[in-house]
Amino acid sequence: MVYIGVDLGGTNIAVGICDKDLKILAKGSVPTRPERAPEEIVKDMADLSARLLKENGIGIGEVASVGIATPGTANSDTGVVEYANNVPFLHFPIADVFKSYLPVPRVLIENDANAAALAEALAGAAKGTKKSVMVTLGTGVGGGIVLDGKVYSGFNHAAGELGHTVIEYNGRPCSCGRRGCWEAYSSATGLVNMTREKVNECKIKGIPSLMVDEFDATGRVSARTAFAAMKKGDKVGAEVVSEYIGYLACGITNMINVFQPEVLSIGGGICNEGDNLLKPLLEIIRTEQYTRKLPNKCAVRIAELGNDAGIIGAAGLGL
Amino acid sequence: MVYIGVDLGGTNIAVGICDKDLKILAKGSVPTRPERAPEEIVKDMADLSARLLKENGIGIGEVASVGIATPGTANSDTGVVEYANNVPFLHFPIADVFKSYLPVPRVLIENDANAAALAEALAGAAKGTKKSVMVTLGTGVGGGIVLDGKVYSGFNHAAGELGHTVIEYNGRPCSCGRRGCWEAYSSATGLVNMTREKVNECKIKGIPSLMVDEFDATGRVSARTAFAAMKKGDKVGAEVVSEYIGYLACGITNMINVFQPEVLSIGGGICNEGDNLLKPLLEIIRTEQYTRKLPNKCAVRIAELGNDAGIIGAAGLGL
Repeated sequence: MVYIGVDLGGTNIAVGICDKDLKILAKGSVPTRPERAPEEIVKDMADLSARLLKENGIGIGEVASVGIATPGTANSDTGVVEYANNVPFLHFPIADVFKSYLPVPRVLIENDANAAALAEALAGAAKGTKKSVMVTLGTGVGGGIVLDGKVYSGFNHAAGELGHTVIEYNGRPCSCGRRGCWEAYSSATGLVNMTREKVNECKIKGIPSLMVDEFDATGRVSARTAFAAMKKGDKVGAEVVSEYIGYLACGITNMINVFQPEVLSIGGGICNEGDNLLKPLLEIIRTEQYTRKLPNKCAVRIAELGNDAGIIGAAGLGL
Repeated sequence: MVYIGVDLGGTNIAVGICDKDLKILAKGSVPTRPERAPEEIVKDMADLSARLLKENGIGIGEVASVGIATPGTANSDTGVVEYANNVPFLHFPIADVFKSYLPVPRVLIENDANAAALAEALAGAAKGTKKSVMVTLGTGVGGGIVLDGKVYSGFNHAAGELGHTVIEYNGRPCSCGRRGCWEAYSSATGLVNMTREKVNECKIKGIPSLMVDEFDATGRVSARTAFAAMKKGDKVGAEVVSEYIGYLACGITNMINVFQPEVLSIGGGICNEGDNLLKPLLEIIRTEQYTRKLPNKCAVRIAELGNDAGIIGAAGLGL
């Protein structure tokens, strides 16, 4: 039997066919074009799934389940996406609609950040653990909680909004309407904002920095700007990285104190910075966590599955 | 069969005999005298249990289990208290020691804040729910998480330190060593500190307030000072209450966004303020929570079991 995982993003629909060990046997993607009607998007998911099956000589009868990782609030009991803000879903019965296009025994759905966390728990950085948390540092700060092999999503399928916990009372405005959310500091967007503010400050005060040079040459800064400058010995770049890591460590330590997972994994492009991110981060967590004097402490690791996490987690819903 | 609950506090040992519905049939207490050897403290727990059984004509054979709610990190798998800071326990096998004094079939242990949360979930404000969180506002801010009738305590029995999540980066010093923890703002101690600071400010600036009058008359302020002044129309008292409730709402909203429990209950003496606390608190949570536009929202309630929560939760461990 095979397990199909569909990862629905704002830009692309990715589909993978997995075996029972969640190894990806085949995968492909098509553009989401989120301006379309929901049914058209789902038809493309089903068509791509059917094409991958055919191309790999797998009969529809060999499909145990299809899992869909979707943005927004996904009711895993009913297969309905209650709401999403970057795809046009409102109380949309995505599981039933998918089945109408491709007759498979089961279609399961889950929020995308939760699916990624499940993937890391079943086949990635938290494999073999019974309690794990994943934090994804992207446009926002996504969170997923996995207990005993299952996603924890609260009584209303909306839990795990770890990025929407305030770490700076009355701090930076957050997309959710609150002020000072962890997401406003530790997302890639947060890092870009910190970098841009520091560049502005340097320009006003006449402080030289490679970050200013990059901005002057390209007209923009990115989530890589501060790290890149730091690696070339730029003091101001190092200050921004240090500020960013301070907030990140704060939020991660909060979640360790709340959950005490066996593994907390961190995903997202910023993790490509490797030890430049992880080493100072772990040092702060080590001294700040409530259990610093206890023998059993949460392991904080970089996530392992990268862009495949959504597919693998979605497929894993059927296990 | 009956279920004995022992609530070990820094001041008193409380013991209750409960029926299978967690109704307390009999209860009593003796001083803890925490300066004693751990074995002497446990012997008093067992002696008080035996006395209550005898006084109520219940044979030892009718005892299904004894539960102990203890401060500190309680390993519920082994019955060992790994560490506590207000009773002298270090890697102390409290369950086995209790059994050596009173031969009962099972002795179970749990952290006291977790036991209180279990009590509210089984027989109090969160009765009938599958997912609940309790927050206790006392000397600190205690937390307990109950999922499917069981305490969630992480992989190392140390989870649920909800009070030790930073809500103000680099803010007020916390007893745990971090800065800006929720506990430093929303505990009774936090309220006393805010009140004292405001009184000092008023005295320096010559601003009149009933809180200043209380301080001048008694030489101290309490967690009731600001609420009492507010209720008499004192503007400065109302400011302190408003500041306190703002931070409390912030931390509670954080926990709702993380857990989406069906019920989040609040315990501790400050809850005696009733609607003066709850109404403005709920108003902030209503507008700040991530799920404010979804139909299913966490209910925030005052805890129901008061000082009996520890006994009831401890007894409930055996159900």
